[in-house]
Amino acid sequence: MKAARFHGRNDIRIDDVPEPEVRPGTVKIQVAWCGICGTDLHEYLEGPIFVPAPGHPHPLSGEEAPVTMGHEFSGTIVEVGDGVQALAVGDNVVVEPYFVCDECPPCKAGNYHLCTKMGFIGLSGGGGGLGGMVVVDTRWVHKVGNIPLDQAALIEPLSVAHHAVARSGAKPGDVALVGGSGPIGLLTAAVLKSQGVTTVISELSAARKDKAMSSGVADYVIDPSQEDLQERLLELTNGVGADVAFECAGVNAVLDTLLTAVKPAGVVVNVSIWGRPATVDMQKIVLKEIDLRGTIAYVRDHAAAIKLVQEGKVDLEPFITAKIALEDLVEQGFNTLIHHNDTAVKILVHP
Amino acid sequence: MKAARFHGRNDIRIDDVPEPEVRPGTVKIQVAWCGICGTDLHEYLEGPIFVPAPGHPHPLSGEEAPVTMGHEFSGTIVEVGDGVQALAVGDNVVVEPYFVCDECPPCKAGNYHLCTKMGFIGLSGGGGGLGGMVVVDTRWVHKVGNIPLDQAALIEPLSVAHHAVARSGAKPGDVALVGGSGPIGLLTAAVLKSQGVTTVISELSAARKDKAMSSGVADYVIDPSQEDLQERLLELTNGVGADVAFECAGVNAVLDTLLTAVKPAGVVVNVSIWGRPATVDMQKIVLKEIDLRGTIAYVRDHAAAIKLVQEGKVDLEPFITAKIALEDLVEQGFNTLIHHNDTAVKILVHP
Repeated sequence: MKAARFHGRNDIRIDDVPEPEVRPGTVKIQVAWCGICGTDLHEYLEGPIFVPAPGHPHPLSGEEAPVTMGHEFSGTIVEVGDGVQALAVGDNVVVEPYFVCDECPPCKAGNYHLCTKMGFIGLSGGGGGLGGMVVVDTRWVHKVGNIPLDQAALIEPLSVAHHAVARSGAKPGDVALVGGSGPIGLLTAAVLKSQGVTTVISELSAARKDKAMSSGVADYVIDPSQEDLQERLLELTNGVGADVAFECAGVNAVLDTLLTAVKPAGVVVNVSIWGRPATVDMQKIVLKEIDLRGTIAYVRDHAAAIKLVQEGKVDLEPFITAKIALEDLVEQGFNTLIHHNDTAVKILVHP
Repeated sequence: MKAARFHGRNDIRIDDVPEPEVRPGTVKIQVAWCGICGTDLHEYLEGPIFVPAPGHPHPLSGEEAPVTMGHEFSGTIVEVGDGVQALAVGDNVVVEPYFVCDECPPCKAGNYHLCTKMGFIGLSGGGGGLGGMVVVDTRWVHKVGNIPLDQAALIEPLSVAHHAVARSGAKPGDVALVGGSGPIGLLTAAVLKSQGVTTVISELSAARKDKAMSSGVADYVIDPSQEDLQERLLELTNGVGADVAFECAGVNAVLDTLLTAVKPAGVVVNVSIWGRPATVDMQKIVLKEIDLRGTIAYVRDHAAAIKLVQEGKVDLEPFITAKIALEDLVEQGFNTLIHHNDTAVKILVHP
């Protein structure tokens, strides 16, 4: 079968690889759609980061580059291994793409997403959604029922957003400020809206501002280059400030803005990945008793994310901005995200 | 009566001032002892910071410099105003030294310590513990019963520590890393010990290390210039890391250490005051899902702090390192803290 494999920085190739074989306790999934994640782009441009470099096999997968990419995927079960009961051929599914050790202190504490040896299918080995077939332990497979398979490929980033919102402790009636409306900012706003939270998105890009409004996930969009964000936010909140705020840009100025805009005793969740240290005004954190909380990936969030879509509380369709073939991955996928990252939200690949 | 008043930077004078008069709903307290706080020292060296500068009266007290200093004090009620029921002449008391507006969103949310107009008795007006008598609204007065009045002067910083520990969510059986063993670090460790938490103090100064051990508040003291703190901590915690950590130094390297040493899904509480922005490795906060929480002062903590001392769970006596007269405030008080800040913990002044 064909698979997009990471060989090195700027070197992702469409290779012929053997089809994976089903094992006891696993299912074989024919991939329908696979989204391209910012993490994939970072690997392409700056990697290997999460991909195990040659000579450094991942401790759990045992694999090293070249590895098949793609961790945001949906598909249909075509074969089940011995002992599999709860899943059957024909089930439409998504995958929580983890390798975890089940032995380290975070795993034992139930925080498998913080496993000290953690790896991802599609980055650390185990095949990936950018190959035609993938074999996965049933533990990580979630049925999606009637959700169209293209939208189902977005369940993975929606789970990231669901977990970020859970970390914030946001309640119905709260006002949330979301800094940045890239894919994760939009999906975070979508989850917040679904939970009865008023969403204010701060964004500079015209295309992203449009998407935030047209997709229906933003109650308000504020462009801090055009308006006084702090003043608008205080107007919108009767002088209180945002109850919760989400850093979805990885930009120091955005983090600064959120620390100013969040109310005393408010919560700022950092959802973005940072390539360098941030400069943080600790006195804001101290004098306002802010909680600055990190969030990464998801832990037991997939079922809730699937339910949000099944119940019509989150519509993923507006976030699919292109569908491409596997052979066009670099040209129409990565290069589009590099050069037109404000208009592209989620590009799906059909392998 | 005599009172130590802040006139300007490096200009604190012992002035003759009129004795304050009791008003309805207030009590008049004859001050027994008043501690010198790091905040007082900052005002002396770099102020006015919290002290309202001349021409800029505090919005709640209406006062401006010169103001009487001292917010960590104990004393005895010598007169009660009209309508006072729950307090009587002869009661030994301490004061939660706030001015709050009761109208702003934080006040309405019960977070009076985050009042947007907040002021302190002893900094923002209203007299202070470095004067012979002070008149205070009964709302802020707490009886200390049989606690000796010299130790009672430390209830205020103990309440700061109590609030910081409450913010951390530390539970019995947890392991806490306390970065820095100045007065607040020591008292934070004391509260943690009283709640069944194992305390590990990180400290460089020989005198402070000795005090941390001899006072009984540290189960372990680690000097990161002598030992690999991270390695020792992992040994002490069976490879888990600290459950909670407290930044009590205001030093960037200490904050870095805590973010490394705390376990995944752990909590770092920042107790110290920062004069400049910090450089923060956001990826640690993200990938370990750390909660970095600010804490300031206290809110409904005094009663619990008093109880800890009354029940013998915290012994404040080891932290009183000197007792001086009001006229020696600058020479034996501030100058000792400036030049011998590692041996002096709490200097008490008798006005």
